[in-house]
Amino acid sequence: MKIASLTLAGLLALSAMAAPAVLADNHGGTKAAIEAVDAEFEAALAAGSASRLAGVYTKDGQALPPNGPVVSGRKALKEFWQGAVDAGFASVELETLELEAFGESAVQVGRYILKTADGETADVGKLMIFWKKEDGEWRWHRDIWNSSNPAK
Amino acid sequence: MKIASLTLAGLLALSAMAAPAVLADNHGGTKAAIEAVDAEFEAALAAGSASRLAGVYTKDGQALPPNGPVVSGRKALKEFWQGAVDAGFASVELETLELEAFGESAVQVGRYILKTADGETADVGKLMIFWKKEDGEWRWHRDIWNSSNPAK
Repeated sequence: MKIASLTLAGLLALSAMAAPAVLADNHGGTKAAIEAVDAEFEAALAAGSASRLAGVYTKDGQALPPNGPVVSGRKALKEFWQGAVDAGFASVELETLELEAFGESAVQVGRYILKTADGETADVGKLMIFWKKEDGEWRWHRDIWNSSNPAK
Repeated sequence: MKIASLTLAGLLALSAMAAPAVLADNHGGTKAAIEAVDAEFEAALAAGSASRLAGVYTKDGQALPPNGPVVSGRKALKEFWQGAVDAGFASVELETLELEAFGESAVQVGRYILKTADGETADVGKLMIFWKKEDGEWRWHRDIWNSSNPAK
């Protein structure tokens, strides 16, 4: 992963995302449950815990990160997120722009702001997460994102 | 958009994606209908038609491209894809790795291979598309992707 500075283009991208076409508000309980899991991911990164970061995914969960292969399963996800911790990513804010639930599945569109330990914005971008309820808990099943900053 | 050469990392990423955890095969008619729309996107790029590329999306569809802001609505999508045509992207192959349908919504996880007019691979990557059925036709509602090649 690379650390990119916050640019005007990034800010424009952010502001373009501030007005989502549809913000589903009809999944009250599900939205709260899902945002609690996102909050756990935020707390896990703040704690530098790759195990907790991987624990947010389903057992056969996958991350589809930019500029790399698919990361499949908790063990590989733990290694992947350990790499992010080691690279100096110290906190992230996840924001839901749209959420639609379909029984035990859900789709979330959102944005992220990734920061370094000194509070500097490392990256801002967009995400889509395909959620599954597993053993009664909402989990990230497929997780893809990309930066809104210009390619370096 | 940038044209990146096919690298070993890209090939590894591709091979890692060749074994999806789950390939839903229980949506026969929907899968065929959805892949016909993907085929229209492929044909539209081969024809260099930004209008047809934009027409694959819902009326308030959004593309979430790497290294740029969200692109909202058919007019902006047409401009965005015209930019891709102008940049020399001449063909794309879209492959479904996973597909799950929920009534009038569906989630597709896949991969793409983007080529220039001389047949050279410009980029390989991963995608997630949130589909909606609109006026009886399956359309891309939210479309996010990223490259599997290393950042340049």
